[in-house]
Amino acid sequence: MKIRVVKNVMAVSEEAAHQNRRRMDEAGVVMINVLSAPGSGKTALLAKTIPALAPDVPCAVLVGDLQTTRDAERLHQAGVRVTQINTGKGCHLSPAEVAAGLDSLDLSAIRCLFVENVGNMVCPAAFDLGEHLRVVLLSTPEGDDKVAKYPTLFQPADVILLTKVDLIDVLDYDAGQVREDLARINTRAPLIELSARSGVGMDAWLEWLTRSVAPKGR
Amino acid sequence: MKIRVVKNVMAVSEEAAHQNRRRMDEAGVVMINVLSAPGSGKTALLAKTIPALAPDVPCAVLVGDLQTTRDAERLHQAGVRVTQINTGKGCHLSPAEVAAGLDSLDLSAIRCLFVENVGNMVCPAAFDLGEHLRVVLLSTPEGDDKVAKYPTLFQPADVILLTKVDLIDVLDYDAGQVREDLARINTRAPLIELSARSGVGMDAWLEWLTRSVAPKGR
Repeated sequence: MKIRVVKNVMAVSEEAAHQNRRRMDEAGVVMINVLSAPGSGKTALLAKTIPALAPDVPCAVLVGDLQTTRDAERLHQAGVRVTQINTGKGCHLSPAEVAAGLDSLDLSAIRCLFVENVGNMVCPAAFDLGEHLRVVLLSTPEGDDKVAKYPTLFQPADVILLTKVDLIDVLDYDAGQVREDLARINTRAPLIELSARSGVGMDAWLEWLTRSVAPKGR
Repeated sequence: MKIRVVKNVMAVSEEAAHQNRRRMDEAGVVMINVLSAPGSGKTALLAKTIPALAPDVPCAVLVGDLQTTRDAERLHQAGVRVTQINTGKGCHLSPAEVAAGLDSLDLSAIRCLFVENVGNMVCPAAFDLGEHLRVVLLSTPEGDDKVAKYPTLFQPADVILLTKVDLIDVLDYDAGQVREDLARINTRAPLIELSARSGVGMDAWLEWLTRSVAPKGR
């Protein structure tokens, strides 16, 4: 039997996250960790959000995926500054991967950095990347039972976006169930219903975002 | 810095998987590991599939979730023999958890055991549970880019089910892209388009399943 000796992985990870946060604070950049299941609409949302915030709130994106650069290409086509991080078989972004991604960016040119995590409702929730805010997406086709089933994802969220609401009429969906489950584990984060495709709810999201990334004291 | 000593986790896991497979073989039961992202329709599919196979192919389900017994309740309401395994923060089922679940079942009463894994496109793909077959679901609302982005999930699949195809008309979806990406990594597994809600494609799936779980030599 092979014996491996490993350091306390979580302690190393936490220290790397703190370093990222200090680096962001010094540069005056707000880092936003964006989490969801695969295919909930993270890339579509960012492709609409970032041009809408420019030029007042200049943004960039670090995007994590196991393989391919498809999300980065989609964002680049939308005129977004983007760096792709491929995790191979890694099920979440680590703070060290984010730190390496930061080296490719001119932090003095941006106010806001979105980190689009690997599509996964479990593992990314356990890792602080050094972000200031956590955005969690839940798309309506995933079903109205996901808040109860994945509490570790929704509990630490600063805002929850119920996406693809343009599909709600063709689904058996109870948004009341989502609100009820959420009330048990997170009463702090607003729930915003939106569709990046139809544009419904984008105003409320952009308003929340603009307020949340505004420099303190203004 | 805390130092932890761990055994080779994967070797222990593989041995537990082999034990599960031997136990199934001795009982004459086919174990099917069902994997997908959260909300792709695993539970809805099994709730329609298992009654359709009875009484010729008696089945049971082990269902894994972080929290709640909602999937088990849905399956129980559909008349399915089901055991829930809660993983807490665990991002996938382990062969040891499956072994514990097997203790709750009368294997002599079934021909087929479905293991509904935790909704996650990354981690469950890395763990052999001792299954004979792997079924991977991909729902149309997740997008047509998922095969390329999660090759470790789709490469070892024995069959791939493109679910929720009743929604395809309201989505910007290119099923050709899925087939093209699949042709690069897995030419062995058939792709079956289906909707558990509308019933489209269920015949092809049940036909594949009946053939795949039939005793060898018949």
